[in-house]
Amino acid sequence: MRSSPIISNPIVSRESGGSLVEQIVRSVASRIDDKLLRTGARMPSIRQFADEQQVSRFTVVEAYDRLVANGYLESRRGSGFFVRERASMLANNHAVALANPVAQQFDVVWLVRNMFRQLPPQKMPGSGVLPHDWLDGELVANGLRAISRVNSSQLLHYGTPQGFMPLRQQLQLKLAELEIAAAPEQIVTTSGVTQALDLVAREFTQPGDTIFVDDPAWFLMFGSFSILGAKVIGIPRLHDGPDVAKLAELAALHKPKLYIINSVMHNPTSTSLSAAKAFQVLKTAEQHDFMIVEDDIYCDMHPGTAVQPATRLAALDQLNRVIYLGGFSKTLAANLRVGFIATSPQLAIRLSDRKMLSTLTTTEIGERVVYKILSEGHYRKHVDRIRGKLDSVRDDVTKRVENLGMKVEYRTPAGMFLWVETSCDSIALAEKALEQGILLAPGSLFSPNQLPSSRMRINIAAMSDPGVWAFLEKEIG
Amino acid sequence: MRSSPIISNPIVSRESGGSLVEQIVRSVASRIDDKLLRTGARMPSIRQFADEQQVSRFTVVEAYDRLVANGYLESRRGSGFFVRERASMLANNHAVALANPVAQQFDVVWLVRNMFRQLPPQKMPGSGVLPHDWLDGELVANGLRAISRVNSSQLLHYGTPQGFMPLRQQLQLKLAELEIAAAPEQIVTTSGVTQALDLVAREFTQPGDTIFVDDPAWFLMFGSFSILGAKVIGIPRLHDGPDVAKLAELAALHKPKLYIINSVMHNPTSTSLSAAKAFQVLKTAEQHDFMIVEDDIYCDMHPGTAVQPATRLAALDQLNRVIYLGGFSKTLAANLRVGFIATSPQLAIRLSDRKMLSTLTTTEIGERVVYKILSEGHYRKHVDRIRGKLDSVRDDVTKRVENLGMKVEYRTPAGMFLWVETSCDSIALAEKALEQGILLAPGSLFSPNQLPSSRMRINIAAMSDPGVWAFLEKEIG
Repeated sequence: MRSSPIISNPIVSRESGGSLVEQIVRSVASRIDDKLLRTGARMPSIRQFADEQQVSRFTVVEAYDRLVANGYLESRRGSGFFVRERASMLANNHAVALANPVAQQFDVVWLVRNMFRQLPPQKMPGSGVLPHDWLDGELVANGLRAISRVNSSQLLHYGTPQGFMPLRQQLQLKLAELEIAAAPEQIVTTSGVTQALDLVAREFTQPGDTIFVDDPAWFLMFGSFSILGAKVIGIPRLHDGPDVAKLAELAALHKPKLYIINSVMHNPTSTSLSAAKAFQVLKTAEQHDFMIVEDDIYCDMHPGTAVQPATRLAALDQLNRVIYLGGFSKTLAANLRVGFIATSPQLAIRLSDRKMLSTLTTTEIGERVVYKILSEGHYRKHVDRIRGKLDSVRDDVTKRVENLGMKVEYRTPAGMFLWVETSCDSIALAEKALEQGILLAPGSLFSPNQLPSSRMRINIAAMSDPGVWAFLEKEIG
Repeated sequence: MRSSPIISNPIVSRESGGSLVEQIVRSVASRIDDKLLRTGARMPSIRQFADEQQVSRFTVVEAYDRLVANGYLESRRGSGFFVRERASMLANNHAVALANPVAQQFDVVWLVRNMFRQLPPQKMPGSGVLPHDWLDGELVANGLRAISRVNSSQLLHYGTPQGFMPLRQQLQLKLAELEIAAAPEQIVTTSGVTQALDLVAREFTQPGDTIFVDDPAWFLMFGSFSILGAKVIGIPRLHDGPDVAKLAELAALHKPKLYIINSVMHNPTSTSLSAAKAFQVLKTAEQHDFMIVEDDIYCDMHPGTAVQPATRLAALDQLNRVIYLGGFSKTLAANLRVGFIATSPQLAIRLSDRKMLSTLTTTEIGERVVYKILSEGHYRKHVDRIRGKLDSVRDDVTKRVENLGMKVEYRTPAGMFLWVETSCDSIALAEKALEQGILLAPGSLFSPNQLPSSRMRINIAAMSDPGVWAFLEKEIG
């Protein structure tokens, strides 16, 4: 048998790991990386390679294709495959890595960037999402498989700017259970609540305008609104909703355009709005003519009003002055990026057009998966399970936190967060924790003015790691 | 056998279409819709239903779950399943449908909204995308199936704001082939080129600032920039790029912040930038200190410089003053929503943070599918096929268009668009076409000032329908 000058030994084996194609790719790539195959060298022809390695030509074609796609080989029409120049690109990688030291400022963007660090989930009590093993990856994977089996041309088009119609019909049913009447035409899907907030804020504010938020509140929106040039002002949050006297006083003074509020399962305190407060908030909004954005992302973590009273503003107002936001990032999968806006028919058209002009459409793939999970009745049971799991750890985590000498600000019977008083500088604590690979969520991040704070948000689902408790014991206990 | 008072006859059959669960759901739902089952009526217990219909209890549980999810039944803990009140919600649907007559203004938003109409693809010569049967739904469906089989916890998290790292590594290789050196750290994924343009425009402009675009150019961005408060000014496009004398004159006058340009396969003319023009554009940008945004969404439709000369600005400038945009909506699937920005390392961090604040992340699901298709070498062949198909129809469509008395402005040897002179009012023509279910793209939409125009963009892949030709023959021929 003839031997090629550059691939002389058998490089595939039916025993070793991976497909034949993968073995060839790995083997040729490593020879190129190790300079055993020089830049510009001509590869054996497909037939020659197949004969020598005793594999099918189809296998070689596929392996060469992947090597071309990965920049190892280039194909010159009519003259075969050649080893490519890779050095210059790799050098560039290195230069950028040096030029780009990680910015370690402790600002609004900090915790969010850190959310995306590859820390083990059990070391992230500061995270705002449930650990993977609390969610159901198979439920999502099954949904993806199912939609990949339908008429595949459905996967090709843009979808519609307002969102996948059957999902919007399901959302209509979901909202009806909360006593919010919203036809599918009043619903616009978004890439999570984040895009919903961005679209609404851009619709209602000009640079210099004021937006009210809860204090404390979800920090990402402080950054979102700041880059729009809006002034962000916090309304103190009490156990049953905002301080309404303060709300009225600040509304008279600042003439806000919007008030963003978590009525139910407020982040970070896990408190919910009482009926009386809800009514007061709506009256104040009417008097001072601002819109209310009710961010109900934690909706499905609420155990029902028998356990914790909760009134949704949109149920009272029926989407006149209240814009209702929801989504599935907390309960199904953040990666699906499915959130939504429910609002008046007129505003739904405006926000849908605005969405179209800034991202055209959201992906219907995620929307189809959520539709499937909702319409087949899996969602209801899934969130029941999550609530049950949260209930099973809440008391224990609360007790252990209190035993360390921290005070839990609101002992609520629901939700995934505890808002605790650490009696120390929570930023210093978070910095020390990060050195040990633990992500905490210091209170100052939740302050609209990033004021220093001794409070901290704890995700009760992410407190199973003994190392986290040992760290807190050492620093606080 | 006992008979339930409300479901008396067998409603499932192993011969008829659909699973047993689907048959039960359909049958019960239609009885409720037809008022054969009254609101508040109690359903048979799961056991009773299963016995009567001779199906497993598991089947009944699943069917009842879906009926609950779809608002037909409600489950009352401990007392069974009951038919739900649906009338109020459905009435609301109807009211909204009446209150919301379709706005038929003929503006920038018009054609985009119409793109999403459910017209048959062969009736959409005005569409900016290829018909489904020109693309490869199975390629995308296979990708989805493959990622649904990996460790499913990967589907749950947010992904990272800058985008899926292996995809960014693939994009580095793709850009290297265009002589653009970009490390993965310099690449930020986006929800299509639309979001990329939105992020860049928000980064560089304040209300009142000026953005230059080509004239003609892709209409959606006129709307995007207008809602940011930017002034949009067009630079006349010639056969080999912009009118550079005009560019310099207008730059001195308007001091633009950005110039958005399709250097290669310009939409709608299918012309590409010559080397000489590219150099002039960069010198002008330097002199008047504006950034260039090179939108290369049609990149892979370009047949190579031997067929049509084309110079990319980013290849000359190496991402200093040029921000390069690309994506896969035209060649793979718009629904994946995968686009990207390549820029300097510093600006990549800023744009990634800005993306995080407005949509948190893009979905990694789409990014993983594109990664798979690129890295396995399928993409290259797929776009070869698309180019081959375009080549096979271009001459014929061009000839037939000319036989109707229309003039093709630029007879380019590549691309999917013809830019034609109709010698009539193209808006009136488009309105008449729409009445017959045909979507045309009148020239005025591509004008930054929406000036009246007798030109029209034709998608050569969408000209196979005899009805379209008959319409044009009647109106123009």
